[in-house]
Amino acid sequence: MTDAEPQPTADAPAVAAAAGWRNAVNISFFSDLLQSIADRGRSMIMSGRGGTAKDLAGLCGDLLSSRGEASGVALAREILDRYDALEDAAKAAFLRELVQRFGAEPAALEKAIAAYREKPDHRTLLDLHKAAEPRRQELIRRLNLSPGGTLRLVRMREELFRHQADLPELEALDADFQHLFSSWFNRGFLVLRPIDWSTPANILEKIIRYEAVHAIESWDDLRRRLQPADRRCFAFFHPQIVDEPLIFVEVALTAEIPAGIGPLLAEDRSVIDPRQATTAVFYSISNCQEGLRGISFGNFLIKQVVEELARQLPALKNFVTLSPAPTFASWLARERRNEASQALTDEDKGVLDALDAQGWTQDAVRLPAVRRVLMEAAAYYYLRAKTPGGRPVDPVARFHLGNGARLERLNWLGDVSPKGLKQAHGLMVNYLYDLDDIEKNHEAFVNKGRVAAASGVRNALRSDLPSREVVPLQ
Amino acid sequence: MTDAEPQPTADAPAVAAAAGWRNAVNISFFSDLLQSIADRGRSMIMSGRGGTAKDLAGLCGDLLSSRGEASGVALAREILDRYDALEDAAKAAFLRELVQRFGAEPAALEKAIAAYREKPDHRTLLDLHKAAEPRRQELIRRLNLSPGGTLRLVRMREELFRHQADLPELEALDADFQHLFSSWFNRGFLVLRPIDWSTPANILEKIIRYEAVHAIESWDDLRRRLQPADRRCFAFFHPQIVDEPLIFVEVALTAEIPAGIGPLLAEDRSVIDPRQATTAVFYSISNCQEGLRGISFGNFLIKQVVEELARQLPALKNFVTLSPAPTFASWLARERRNEASQALTDEDKGVLDALDAQGWTQDAVRLPAVRRVLMEAAAYYYLRAKTPGGRPVDPVARFHLGNGARLERLNWLGDVSPKGLKQAHGLMVNYLYDLDDIEKNHEAFVNKGRVAAASGVRNALRSDLPSREVVPLQ
Amino acid sequence: MTDAEPQPTADAPAVAAAAGWRNAVNISFFSDLLQSIADRGRSMIMSGRGGTAKDLAGLCGDLLSSRGEASGVALAREILDRYDALEDAAKAAFLRELVQRFGAEPAALEKAIAAYREKPDHRTLLDLHKAAEPRRQELIRRLNLSPGGTLRLVRMREELFRHQADLPELEALDADFQHLFSSWFNRGFLVLRPIDWSTPANILEKIIRYEAVHAIESWDDLRRRLQPADRRCFAFFHPQIVDEPLIFVEVALTAEIPAGIGPLLAEDRSVIDPRQATTAVFYSISNCQEGLRGISFGNFLIKQVVEELARQLPALKNFVTLSPAPTFASWLARERRNEASQALTDEDKGVLDALDAQGWTQDAVRLPAVRRVLMEAAAYYYLRAKTPGGRPVDPVARFHLGNGARLERLNWLGDVSPKGLKQAHGLMVNYLYDLDDIEKNHEAFVNKGRVAAASGVRNALRSDLPSREVVPLQ
Amino acid sequence: MTDAEPQPTADAPAVAAAAGWRNAVNISFFSDLLQSIADRGRSMIMSGRGGTAKDLAGLCGDLLSSRGEASGVALAREILDRYDALEDAAKAAFLRELVQRFGAEPAALEKAIAAYREKPDHRTLLDLHKAAEPRRQELIRRLNLSPGGTLRLVRMREELFRHQADLPELEALDADFQHLFSSWFNRGFLVLRPIDWSTPANILEKIIRYEAVHAIESWDDLRRRLQPADRRCFAFFHPQIVDEPLIFVEVALTAEIPAGIGPLLAEDRSVIDPRQATTAVFYSISNCQEGLRGISFGNFLIKQVVEELARQLPALKNFVTLSPAPTFASWLARERRNEASQALTDEDKGVLDALDAQGWTQDAVRLPAVRRVLMEAAAYYYLRAKTPGGRPVDPVARFHLGNGARLERLNWLGDVSPKGLKQAHGLMVNYLYDLDDIEKNHEAFVNKGRVAAASGVRNALRSDLPSREVVPLQ
Repeated sequence: MTDAEPQPTADAPAVAAAAGWRNAVNISFFSDLLQSIADRGRSMIMSGRGGTAKDLAGLCGDLLSSRGEASGVALAREILDRYDALEDAAKAAFLRELVQRFGAEPAALEKAIAAYREKPDHRTLLDLHKAAEPRRQELIRRLNLSPGGTLRLVRMREELFRHQADLPELEALDADFQHLFSSWFNRGFLVLRPIDWSTPANILEKIIRYEAVHAIESWDDLRRRLQPADRRCFAFFHPQIVDEPLIFVEVALTAEIPAGIGPLLAEDRSVIDPRQATTAVFYSISNCQEGLRGISFGNFLIKQVVEELARQLPALKNFVTLSPAPTFASWLARERRNEASQALTDEDKGVLDALDAQGWTQDAVRLPAVRRVLMEAAAYYYLRAKTPGGRPVDPVARFHLGNGARLERLNWLGDVSPKGLKQAHGLMVNYLYDLDDIEKNHEAFVNKGRVAAASGVRNALRSDLPSREVVPLQ
Repeated sequence: MTDAEPQPTADAPAVAAAAGWRNAVNISFFSDLLQSIADRGRSMIMSGRGGTAKDLAGLCGDLLSSRGEASGVALAREILDRYDALEDAAKAAFLRELVQRFGAEPAALEKAIAAYREKPDHRTLLDLHKAAEPRRQELIRRLNLSPGGTLRLVRMREELFRHQADLPELEALDADFQHLFSSWFNRGFLVLRPIDWSTPANILEKIIRYEAVHAIESWDDLRRRLQPADRRCFAFFHPQIVDEPLIFVEVALTAEIPAGIGPLLAEDRSVIDPRQATTAVFYSISNCQEGLRGISFGNFLIKQVVEELARQLPALKNFVTLSPAPTFASWLARERRNEASQALTDEDKGVLDALDAQGWTQDAVRLPAVRRVLMEAAAYYYLRAKTPGGRPVDPVARFHLGNGARLERLNWLGDVSPKGLKQAHGLMVNYLYDLDDIEKNHEAFVNKGRVAAASGVRNALRSDLPSREVVPLQ
Repeated sequence: MTDAEPQPTADAPAVAAAAGWRNAVNISFFSDLLQSIADRGRSMIMSGRGGTAKDLAGLCGDLLSSRGEASGVALAREILDRYDALEDAAKAAFLRELVQRFGAEPAALEKAIAAYREKPDHRTLLDLHKAAEPRRQELIRRLNLSPGGTLRLVRMREELFRHQADLPELEALDADFQHLFSSWFNRGFLVLRPIDWSTPANILEKIIRYEAVHAIESWDDLRRRLQPADRRCFAFFHPQIVDEPLIFVEVALTAEIPAGIGPLLAEDRSVIDPRQATTAVFYSISNCQEGLRGISFGNFLIKQVVEELARQLPALKNFVTLSPAPTFASWLARERRNEASQALTDEDKGVLDALDAQGWTQDAVRLPAVRRVLMEAAAYYYLRAKTPGGRPVDPVARFHLGNGARLERLNWLGDVSPKGLKQAHGLMVNYLYDLDDIEKNHEAFVNKGRVAAASGVRNALRSDLPSREVVPLQ
Repeated sequence: MTDAEPQPTADAPAVAAAAGWRNAVNISFFSDLLQSIADRGRSMIMSGRGGTAKDLAGLCGDLLSSRGEASGVALAREILDRYDALEDAAKAAFLRELVQRFGAEPAALEKAIAAYREKPDHRTLLDLHKAAEPRRQELIRRLNLSPGGTLRLVRMREELFRHQADLPELEALDADFQHLFSSWFNRGFLVLRPIDWSTPANILEKIIRYEAVHAIESWDDLRRRLQPADRRCFAFFHPQIVDEPLIFVEVALTAEIPAGIGPLLAEDRSVIDPRQATTAVFYSISNCQEGLRGISFGNFLIKQVVEELARQLPALKNFVTLSPAPTFASWLARERRNEASQALTDEDKGVLDALDAQGWTQDAVRLPAVRRVLMEAAAYYYLRAKTPGGRPVDPVARFHLGNGARLERLNWLGDVSPKGLKQAHGLMVNYLYDLDDIEKNHEAFVNKGRVAAASGVRNALRSDLPSREVVPLQ
């Protein structure tokens, strides 16, 4: 047959293994190459155009109208280059232009609505769907032809967020980004990589930069988290963005479920033989790309890492987090002020006044009482306190419980760093991932709002509280 | 911050080079891993379900409704496994079920239309767009979570094509596939790889299988096309489908623009030093995945390969194809029967009667006259004969001219294989890619229907034809 | 400090894992590069030199005398290029020149001997050792500077073997090669790689070419040995010779110890799940480089592959070969003619006359008697027949027993191919590798000549033979 | 044929490109594997042995006598493990034991001498060579069977150096190491790799550690030397020691030949476009492995890097070093004390007294005179001052001139760091590598002691010096 039409004779071969055979033409080469194509195209394009946001939006119109894919690559690159060169205010103006100019065509949409109503079948529906699609989506797809385009578009969305407070209409453009990114960053396309001390330095410096939970102070600090035999780190990457992790998790292998972060990160701690470890502790998980906000990876990452560690180290029995309680202190402050608090009695409130003193953690006299009341309040915070939508008030709890984890243990003074004391009076939490239960926990949480919690947590609730359902452990 | 919310502090790092550093956890491992997750999920899912198309569509409903991503991976895999196990008729029934069950929700759509009409802003438009999207699209995205899901979905579309004649309503599902595949197989995500004699055998056997223009007879034949210093081959791959080429092109490096395929493929030809070559000949380009029909790669492939060869071998001056004329013989037959033919005079028709004899190419007496008339007709075929839409009747011509190439030369008896004689009376064609002109040629072709043609081709037109515009060479 | 002297401050870092990070400057590039250096050097060197063997030996003298390493690379390459261009007879003459010209210096040697005798200490010994070293060894080391030099030197030794019958003095040069190759191809420098259907085709064609035991007929035959889930293949490579296997072994995973080669290679055999296999069968092991004759790899290869398979597939219990008995038929013929044979009685000889008839394997009447006598003779062949040095007469037996394997089973009509019938009347043998015993077996074999044999083999000996020691199984 | 004998049918395939196809069984896996083999062997070996140096030498005797290669791997590892566990003094004792016990066998050597004298042919010579070889060499080869053995042996030699002052007899063992390492680390086996900011961190930390010329202060300092577009770094690696560079060179791309190190390393310098650079400056070259002292790589490294940079960046015209003059200050101090100095007049000496004052570089009054005298002395130092062997007194000069470089320029106050002032009163030197001249320069230097020097350097010599030959520039 011909080169105009596909004529494969394939039957279905199995999907097979990894890339990296030696003839791969590497990406940087193609960046150069496409740059070169782009450069040829540019001279044709650039003449006589200025550099305002409106001009740039005009180029976007050309990109959408051009049926020429060659100029498409050049033009896409040109637009992104010019965009990068804009001042901040001009960027905002450009993004707004996109919203205003490249929505759906109202007339065409009206026509499609009419056609669908007249004869609602799959063709009229298809036409309606197309007509209702903002032309921005096709624009974004075409911008992605540019070398390195995907990451540049992720950065563009990051900037969109910065301007959104002033320009709420950017929400429309954000919806387009989110729609496309959900498709492009589908879990099926992501690649998991271990991160260790033999990882390229340009990746490692991003781990340092993106760590969002327990800051990495220096290269030596990083090395302490990666190189010891009882430490692991894993990240998701997208094949098109090879040097930028999307999300990563840091793991400690330990002999027991840890109650605080200090000993895990101590410089002088003893390293254990990983084959002796019983517990894998996910003590930090960080999203790296603000521009991918709302595109969910963490759930997949944790479960894959659990499976991989279980395979590597069959002696591992527990897969737990050591997590912060980021809104506990602010919630508790509200309850202390709340005269009708169901969580705290007046007596409790009195005890908790101790928290207002500097150095309260050193006050040996009052500490036992504070501990008792605070831990009861923490149990309430996780098991009873709900958002208007009926979900736990703690965002970390929502994430892990939504993944199907179980609330395993509340840890008194687990994080006595200034940040830990400020946001949670030192409280830390373990969530436990048991692959045999996550399905069931998840369903119960999503459908019925049940919080899976170990008996130790449930028992920490004051017994005189008005009853409300807490899911018991089977 | 916390593990519940992304909090990157990133500035914009450059997009950097290739994968393959040594810690990559390879894909086959993750296939195993996801298999394992899937296996856990399955016991929960499988109980009490039968295996009909309807049952399977029911599982798809579960997949769409499940908010649990863990079961999502398991369930996606389960559905694809069950689908693969279906008989052909049941597969067709299943695909039809998808069309019938998972379109847009009419009630929700009506509501969205009403809301939009009442207040046409970006929010109501967004809602309308979502409401008009067939739920099949989200279903396909979720099926893609399955390990190896992308290729399995491509195969599913292949099967869809087989059933479409009987079930025209499958067109709706095809539109969904096409919409998503266009996004997933965006040029920005594809990887170009050279194919040579050191390419893994499992890839090479697919090159043998998918070659659609000049069949590869054996491994020895393949080696003759890959190993000599004056041969090249390149393919596009998708990062998620590492062992399946999407499209590939075979290239010969020569001292002049070739007029026929025979010498290029001859076993006993002389190999030339590639640094001496002036011409790169694209003599075969084959799409590999029927399931990606309509997703365009060829244009990008040719241009990238031109750029790369130009870089590797600066002495190259000409980048041409040696292409078939797949519908020339059938078009000519019609003209010979057409009493009002503008392409052929009665005298011409008489001369062409010679074509009906076996072994006409050996008839030394009549051959000169046949050649003259046939080549005039060929010029007409490319320059004047048009589809109702005003485009050239030859599909290969539409492809290359649409890419911005120029019709460079018509070759008498360029392919005297039985296939070549049958489809084109031996005619072959060179299209020339000149990167400085493709933009202009493309625009003129797309917007005005002008066919860029070398003077040699234009001069081959009979001078007494009624005038019609042919684009002259600048 | 300075660039003239090494000044590392290193402490001892652990030896760490594999190469392949993305910045490796690949070997082919450096071939080009060194070519380029060589080309510069050449103009200086080439002027006024002819092309005889003597001239070339003269260049070798220059290479040895030159203290310039830059010209060394160029000159080394020049010499190897010129050598390759010589006619066969001139090559032989050149090799002889090397023997004659570049031995040790007699005068210097005499002086070193005298100095050593006067004062035998480590310095005089060192000088003596150096003086006794043929200058050819340094020459070979310098030729190895040339890009691709190692393989070219291996090929040179191959050619040496071809001429050795006519030129026995080449033995001296061979000793130099063997000395250096033993060092260069030390087990510590070799890399084991699995060979499978995704191995590059240029490697696979060498597997086809080098298979020395059961010829591979075609690419389809090769695929049948590599692709099924119950087949494995492994090869040793040298890092400097990346596209040439040094030795490889083909493995079948089976449910029991096989008695014949036919079923293992049958096109229509059933593939089993490798996780169900109990037995790994090494049915073919082939050395690839004649030029490395006498440099031992097979022992290491088998043991590494045993370990790796045991790790991959814990259900494997038996690691056996299915081996030919290459000299059994010729030995038996001698015994049949030997009037004083201890292995065969006159009656035996009468029975074995049946072997002389065409198609004797089809002779149902005589076959039982033939089988009994032949298998007794086979037991004798392995357990009692010895070389003058007291070792088993069968070369394959010497190899595997020397590795510490045990003679596990003799198989009647295990190989009924023409080759198998001709060399061994169809006899095949299993040797068993038990990692817990190989040490002990090896020591007993090497030091005491004991053949480790399973009771079934020992029992097959005729009981009325004069006693000689056979090692019993513990 | 059979598995006992090699039977390749190979003709000579070209040496082809790099490793890294996906099935490579990685080295760390084999470390584990060999560990496992070793562990099996160990139980047999270990029983009843103590841990003294003598015991360990006894094990070495076993390793030499064992003909069993399986136990060889285990035993080799055992010996190296035990060696590592020894105290420093015991290590020294062990090394001495090796010298004493495992030299050549005197009786066998005497016999070989006698046989050679009686009939001096290649066989008796071969036997003599073998008999004169210390058995330590075979011991070292067998120790190299151990996983990671090569690097461990390099470390052993490092330790040998530390003990050599007290135990001069270790010289004999050092000669064995040097003999074998010269063969193992033959240039033909080394791999050049670029080092950049995407190199694995565990390699980069060694670059920091091993930098011997201009210390790297921190990861930020390292990044400034690797990441900017106008910086390069290259290292040689051995395939068996993948994570340890052997030698590396740091390169700056500049617009002119630099006169001082300060501006090259300044934090706030401007980065230039490498395509605009005319000059590549080798400003630091460091050997990494003290245990490879005397095995020469630097020469090859510089020339390969010159070739590669010339290929990458055709605009580069000059390849120069910016080198220290490490013994200039000590030489000058001697000359100042030397009453018969030919290099300095009494007047010169008076001027140079200024050097003894703190902060002399700030003394604007005396500086011009100091400069004149010092630069004249520097010219003398490089062109006239010779070692007893007639070579330049400066070790860096011997290295670069021996490589065929030319002394290009002497730089006043090129390095005003405390180290630079102390060792060379700030003097720095450029050596220039011109690939067209290095052959000639090298030959003239090695054979006739001629120093290739630019006219600027030659002209800096005081004209009233007694004449001695300086090679003029052609």
